[in-house]
Amino acid sequence: MTGAREACGVFGLFAPGEDVARLTFFGLHSLQHRGQEAAGIAVSDGLGLRVHKGLGLVSQVFTESVLQPLTGSAAVGHCRYSTTGSSSLANAQPFYLDTSLGPIAVAHNGNLTNAHLLRRELLERGVGLVSSSDSEVITQLLASPEGGDDFVDRIRSFMARAVGAYSLALLTPGSVYGVRDPWGFRPLCLGRLGDGWIIASESCALASLGAVFEREVEPGEIVQLDRRGLTSHQGRPAQQTSFCMFEFVYFARPDSRLMGRTVHRVRQEMGRLLARQHPARADIVIGVPDSGTPAAMGYAQESGIPLNEGLTKNRYIARTFIQPDQRMRQAGIAMKYNPLLENLRGQRVVVVDDSIVRGNTSRAITRLLRQAGAAEVHFRVSCPPIRHPCFMGIDFPTYEELTANRVTLEELAEALGVDSLGYLSVEGMQEATRRAGFCLACFTGDYPVPVQFGLEKAVFEASPALEAVR
Amino acid sequence: MTGAREACGVFGLFAPGEDVARLTFFGLHSLQHRGQEAAGIAVSDGLGLRVHKGLGLVSQVFTESVLQPLTGSAAVGHCRYSTTGSSSLANAQPFYLDTSLGPIAVAHNGNLTNAHLLRRELLERGVGLVSSSDSEVITQLLASPEGGDDFVDRIRSFMARAVGAYSLALLTPGSVYGVRDPWGFRPLCLGRLGDGWIIASESCALASLGAVFEREVEPGEIVQLDRRGLTSHQGRPAQQTSFCMFEFVYFARPDSRLMGRTVHRVRQEMGRLLARQHPARADIVIGVPDSGTPAAMGYAQESGIPLNEGLTKNRYIARTFIQPDQRMRQAGIAMKYNPLLENLRGQRVVVVDDSIVRGNTSRAITRLLRQAGAAEVHFRVSCPPIRHPCFMGIDFPTYEELTANRVTLEELAEALGVDSLGYLSVEGMQEATRRAGFCLACFTGDYPVPVQFGLEKAVFEASPALEAVR
Amino acid sequence: MTGAREACGVFGLFAPGEDVARLTFFGLHSLQHRGQEAAGIAVSDGLGLRVHKGLGLVSQVFTESVLQPLTGSAAVGHCRYSTTGSSSLANAQPFYLDTSLGPIAVAHNGNLTNAHLLRRELLERGVGLVSSSDSEVITQLLASPEGGDDFVDRIRSFMARAVGAYSLALLTPGSVYGVRDPWGFRPLCLGRLGDGWIIASESCALASLGAVFEREVEPGEIVQLDRRGLTSHQGRPAQQTSFCMFEFVYFARPDSRLMGRTVHRVRQEMGRLLARQHPARADIVIGVPDSGTPAAMGYAQESGIPLNEGLTKNRYIARTFIQPDQRMRQAGIAMKYNPLLENLRGQRVVVVDDSIVRGNTSRAITRLLRQAGAAEVHFRVSCPPIRHPCFMGIDFPTYEELTANRVTLEELAEALGVDSLGYLSVEGMQEATRRAGFCLACFTGDYPVPVQFGLEKAVFEASPALEAVR
Amino acid sequence: MTGAREACGVFGLFAPGEDVARLTFFGLHSLQHRGQEAAGIAVSDGLGLRVHKGLGLVSQVFTESVLQPLTGSAAVGHCRYSTTGSSSLANAQPFYLDTSLGPIAVAHNGNLTNAHLLRRELLERGVGLVSSSDSEVITQLLASPEGGDDFVDRIRSFMARAVGAYSLALLTPGSVYGVRDPWGFRPLCLGRLGDGWIIASESCALASLGAVFEREVEPGEIVQLDRRGLTSHQGRPAQQTSFCMFEFVYFARPDSRLMGRTVHRVRQEMGRLLARQHPARADIVIGVPDSGTPAAMGYAQESGIPLNEGLTKNRYIARTFIQPDQRMRQAGIAMKYNPLLENLRGQRVVVVDDSIVRGNTSRAITRLLRQAGAAEVHFRVSCPPIRHPCFMGIDFPTYEELTANRVTLEELAEALGVDSLGYLSVEGMQEATRRAGFCLACFTGDYPVPVQFGLEKAVFEASPALEAVR
Repeated sequence: MTGAREACGVFGLFAPGEDVARLTFFGLHSLQHRGQEAAGIAVSDGLGLRVHKGLGLVSQVFTESVLQPLTGSAAVGHCRYSTTGSSSLANAQPFYLDTSLGPIAVAHNGNLTNAHLLRRELLERGVGLVSSSDSEVITQLLASPEGGDDFVDRIRSFMARAVGAYSLALLTPGSVYGVRDPWGFRPLCLGRLGDGWIIASESCALASLGAVFEREVEPGEIVQLDRRGLTSHQGRPAQQTSFCMFEFVYFARPDSRLMGRTVHRVRQEMGRLLARQHPARADIVIGVPDSGTPAAMGYAQESGIPLNEGLTKNRYIARTFIQPDQRMRQAGIAMKYNPLLENLRGQRVVVVDDSIVRGNTSRAITRLLRQAGAAEVHFRVSCPPIRHPCFMGIDFPTYEELTANRVTLEELAEALGVDSLGYLSVEGMQEATRRAGFCLACFTGDYPVPVQFGLEKAVFEASPALEAVR
Repeated sequence: MTGAREACGVFGLFAPGEDVARLTFFGLHSLQHRGQEAAGIAVSDGLGLRVHKGLGLVSQVFTESVLQPLTGSAAVGHCRYSTTGSSSLANAQPFYLDTSLGPIAVAHNGNLTNAHLLRRELLERGVGLVSSSDSEVITQLLASPEGGDDFVDRIRSFMARAVGAYSLALLTPGSVYGVRDPWGFRPLCLGRLGDGWIIASESCALASLGAVFEREVEPGEIVQLDRRGLTSHQGRPAQQTSFCMFEFVYFARPDSRLMGRTVHRVRQEMGRLLARQHPARADIVIGVPDSGTPAAMGYAQESGIPLNEGLTKNRYIARTFIQPDQRMRQAGIAMKYNPLLENLRGQRVVVVDDSIVRGNTSRAITRLLRQAGAAEVHFRVSCPPIRHPCFMGIDFPTYEELTANRVTLEELAEALGVDSLGYLSVEGMQEATRRAGFCLACFTGDYPVPVQFGLEKAVFEASPALEAVR
Repeated sequence: MTGAREACGVFGLFAPGEDVARLTFFGLHSLQHRGQEAAGIAVSDGLGLRVHKGLGLVSQVFTESVLQPLTGSAAVGHCRYSTTGSSSLANAQPFYLDTSLGPIAVAHNGNLTNAHLLRRELLERGVGLVSSSDSEVITQLLASPEGGDDFVDRIRSFMARAVGAYSLALLTPGSVYGVRDPWGFRPLCLGRLGDGWIIASESCALASLGAVFEREVEPGEIVQLDRRGLTSHQGRPAQQTSFCMFEFVYFARPDSRLMGRTVHRVRQEMGRLLARQHPARADIVIGVPDSGTPAAMGYAQESGIPLNEGLTKNRYIARTFIQPDQRMRQAGIAMKYNPLLENLRGQRVVVVDDSIVRGNTSRAITRLLRQAGAAEVHFRVSCPPIRHPCFMGIDFPTYEELTANRVTLEELAEALGVDSLGYLSVEGMQEATRRAGFCLACFTGDYPVPVQFGLEKAVFEASPALEAVR
Repeated sequence: MTGAREACGVFGLFAPGEDVARLTFFGLHSLQHRGQEAAGIAVSDGLGLRVHKGLGLVSQVFTESVLQPLTGSAAVGHCRYSTTGSSSLANAQPFYLDTSLGPIAVAHNGNLTNAHLLRRELLERGVGLVSSSDSEVITQLLASPEGGDDFVDRIRSFMARAVGAYSLALLTPGSVYGVRDPWGFRPLCLGRLGDGWIIASESCALASLGAVFEREVEPGEIVQLDRRGLTSHQGRPAQQTSFCMFEFVYFARPDSRLMGRTVHRVRQEMGRLLARQHPARADIVIGVPDSGTPAAMGYAQESGIPLNEGLTKNRYIARTFIQPDQRMRQAGIAMKYNPLLENLRGQRVVVVDDSIVRGNTSRAITRLLRQAGAAEVHFRVSCPPIRHPCFMGIDFPTYEELTANRVTLEELAEALGVDSLGYLSVEGMQEATRRAGFCLACFTGDYPVPVQFGLEKAVFEASPALEAVR
């Protein structure tokens, strides 16, 4: 699967006595799959905040000499999704502001569907904005004294007006706040590290620090972490829970726990149900590495067809901006995947991927398998066709670019050059999670909150007045 | 002279058809003496703005690959003074904001004496601030719709409330605005380049581009440069003109013209008057390179004592952060200045410097001259004793650190180890300019605008919540 | 498996009309697993050579602006293994020298066991050496006119005296030479790209370019690629073939073909034989990602125990030099691997890894599995115990550090904390390849060439007089 | 003067107990005018050597984190002249080699006129060379056991065969050697720092460290600095002394002492004699900053015409690679020099420069002065016409580019657009120094050693097979 980008990972901890910047570094390192474009850490020493952020992987932005002076008792961190070229430091997070209540730093995962309205309102109120990011909009809203005299009131005031997805980690000199929107679109969990507390987008970040998973932050909840420990505030009554199904399908790390389920297990179950819904006569099952592997394993277990590896993925592909030449472009995606010849030659192959967005990768993989001598190619997808854009934080393409909108499944099978094509049903996908309360909008078009078509991409794009700094 | 730092150079031009970013680069390069910490350029292509800024010299921040995409019809630029260590990109300029009237970029030279009040007001109005810079305060004030429906009205509204020094270069998609405070504290001049117009802190920036000097921007004036050419607006009625005398004494480049006078000529004249006020029996006159040279030349001409060079200055001293070891520190300033032995041995020397701030350099120079065999050292200073801090944009030390406040001139002469010490009088300094209307506060303590002691340094210091980005 | 490091990947091509530097870039990118410390490319335009090299991944060393001027008709490239800290640009390759026959650039994979003797001889002959690398020794030997009047003769002369492992890619203005030592220790293969020819350490580099695999370069062979096409010379009669078994076990990419076998398939077969030799009563089989996965798959197939994933590996772990704090160090390797809780809880687990070097990783993995709730842990290793250092290019630790030397297998099992421990036998390992002619020295201590103990590490270490440049 | 480039500054010290790398840093900093392209330092801790070098100014190549680990008891350093673009780290110095006598590092100022022969000989002896630098040739010659069993013998052996200019600073684990060619082409002096000893290209480097000037290293002398203090060896009998006159004219820093004379004083005397040989009726004398200033001062003193400043030079011009646009290019050198209008308007001006190489700068300066309103321009040059290339280390242009070869002085005066033109005579130039024993080849064509025309530039140019590393 390619072509969809998550909008960020957030992390925060209150842990006096610990090396909070270093712990945040490793927390973000575990969340690196949620965003590779930029990373940042803000620390509090109880009096003021310091922020360091930069473009690149967490391990590129932070060196020992950067980390060491970032001492303090609390921190928040952020990593941001990757784009080619249009990246900008002005959009990097955490976003810092001095306010009438003192300084704050905000890390945000998600996307407000009414960001354009809130932005216009701020501009008309005389607040100039330095970036195109809706995270700056959130931070400036929290700076407004109209919201109240403390940050819990201001966060509540913000939540009363914000529509859409937001999991926030917010740092003030004295506290860390974790905030999750009332629909619970994006994940946010809570853990303990000795006497300290941690919030993180995914539980894998807790595990990597030796912290103990406590629970998820509830939709609509504000958790406040400070010298008094954990305090839970109701920020806004929970709405109909609408957790992003795509976290289970693709985004979350397989070892994370969401809604009490290990993500890998759910993906494996999706593969099992896929095998039941779309069986195939074949000799081997392979997954598209790495995201298709768990479902392929489930498909193999359910179908009894042996699992094998059919494609190798170059582990070092990330962040290569060198363009191939014409000859190589014609050779397709060979740079990223290579076939395992002896495993494929003469075989009838079931290939399982987690999703199809534009279809380019699926077509190229099919061609690779054919070139390697596969006798038949049966393409199986462990989620339903993606037909609708996301307004809640995933950078899917527009309607026009979503393959499943343009053609029938039959046409798609033919375009991909496969012998058969099967998608998991919406019901099967839900069944695999053994849970309810999902946002399925990208599959069904039923958006849990009002959205305005035409704005789905805007929030991901650099403003024309982008500020590029170095 | 060391220890005083100018707060920036500004530049702007409206010149469709020209390579505006490149011209701004060379304009800033000519203004580099006004600030070596950071540099930035904003360009407009008529629709939106793009900004690039970074830490270091103009020639370090801008390379061909940075300049080439910055195409457009208008630009503003900024260079910022140098500090050791506490530099921050968050305080670099031009400062960019999207506002209800569209994007603006502001470059500022000067210092508002009521910045702390305006800052507090903004915070209380709910405007969060990302930096400790009063330039951000200015830019956010211009973002307020209460100021009016166009930028000329908003600038007027800002001018009505701002107290202190500000020479601004302001860029919008359609126009460049040059703004000078009603007291005319800081220089700002106007030039023509073909059909285009330029504003710059000093005329040397015009000369370096082959542009023609037109006139100075008047105190209280707003000049608007756009497709209709030059439009002059009255921003606020001019107050009692209070041009910074220290521009003549030290800051401005010798080839710049201020108030119709070539700076070098005025400095030479200061030396002539100094010779009349404080003659000496000596064999040679030397200047402390480079800023003391013009006055030394005038002193020699007036006194008839031959001019010679007595000290060599390392041309590459700038931006070396390597610290000398203990032995070298005891050897004093030898790294920066070296004596010319044959010119000094056995001579009675008049040494002319432009000013004394802390006195450390003067003492070290005197020791160097003695070690080189000078028979007598007569120290002459081409301005009066500096006894008061500046609130209008020069980073003088506090009262305590200003040598002339702590000791009598006799004590100072003894501390420096000189045979005689003479300062130019306030009257002599003014006479040398053949002009009137100066801010002489650092010499006399008469501040043209209300100031609040204790805040003179604040504006130069990083906030505790400094945002460090890369 | 961790703790063993390959000494490099080499690549070369002669292909007039192609963008040879770009093709070499992607070739090296596919060989990146063989060395992540440094990378370099030399190109020939038919008249002279140009070299660019640097520290880091191929994609970090080469950008578009570096690649574009490297035009020519032929190129060689190199990537080098990763160490922490002691890396040096002086040891980076290709190594360039001007000689009496004109310029050459040499890329080397392997290790000469008589390098110290050859080095001493060069020094005594009056040849100064700039690095500690035996690749410089090779290059200077090729510079000696005593070797002959053309490079084929000089290569033959070198081969007559060199003992040990060397797969070379050598560039002159007119030709590319591929050279493989008479024992065939390290891999080197030959491919076609249109009318051009390619040599590469592994066939995966051919596949990624859309080139066609032709054959392996024979032990003792010199292949010359130039305008006349491919010419094969006998460099030195082949000795007893001694191909490095560890390439099959761990180093080579699974999609590469060695001795006609797909590496992945051989590893799977190793797992099958391992299952027969060391069966276990268990509920699931898991591999240590990524190198243990193919053998785990074979083990599962043979044993009938279901395969699953039990550990997640952070994809972004590479090149993080930030050290964990004390608390985290005690938590072991959690940063690199995370357990998949639902897959492990209450299960009897067979965990398959490709090898054990020091044992630290194996112990930490076992602890992780136990913490995740595994009922039993049966550790299986798809190669025999490693008991002897390598002198032919693999950076194994010394005898003292090799776990299998210090303790019995029973003691090791106890130290690791496993319920059972099983290694594949030497015979089983060979059987899995279905080939003969291996160097098995690290398992058996039978070295195919004379070695001098105490020098096994020297060649990997920086000289005391290391030249560090930037 | 522009267009001539010095080939390097060298520095060395033996001073156990001192921070030798830091002292070398500041020594090189004082020699920065001799070379701005690259800098390097090698240190010895008594056992081995470490080298760090890089492209750029000394202060750019060395930071605290680079300097701090470079501990030891002795060091040598080097700075290299600046070129645009073709700079290469492979040519940076000190040049390091491991030899049969252990490691050495060599820093070289000068140029061997038989370098091409020595290079060919090395290549034919089987020594490959990594750079095009004759400094590498020197270092490899010192590596040859044929030269003897210790370094003094090897240096003597080298001196017996080397023709041309070389001032060397050579580091071994136990000693620093200073070597000056038997003609004494390039400067090299000796100083004391406490119990330690220093060698440096110019005495200004001693002064900046608080070291005491002892004497110059004699032509043909080898000084050895080690635990026994200073030992002087005769390397080769001194030849007819041929010190480079251009050091006095332009290269050396004005505060350095050469042959017992302060350079500034000699330049002033050149101006005096120039005034006698080429008087002018004029109102003011100005120098072309900075190199023309001392001679202008002498001219004014002798002629009685008042000295003034007429041109300002941008202090920050160095190392700007941004190219001006077409309009600016037509405006000539305005970027580097600006006229001081009030000092020039209506004046008859004598302008004094130290030399004319290509004539472009002189023509542009004349135009600037005319545009500023100068009534007459009388150009005076404080050395004779430069008519011959240099083979001993100065990068003068070829015969064709040397203006004085192409036209008569009358034609040149017309081409420059001056009212009169006068050069100091060869005799006058020598008289000003009050010394004898100069190389005057660039003025007279009498070369003290055999030279081969056509090779004067070669040594400064990158080889076609240049190794570019980063």
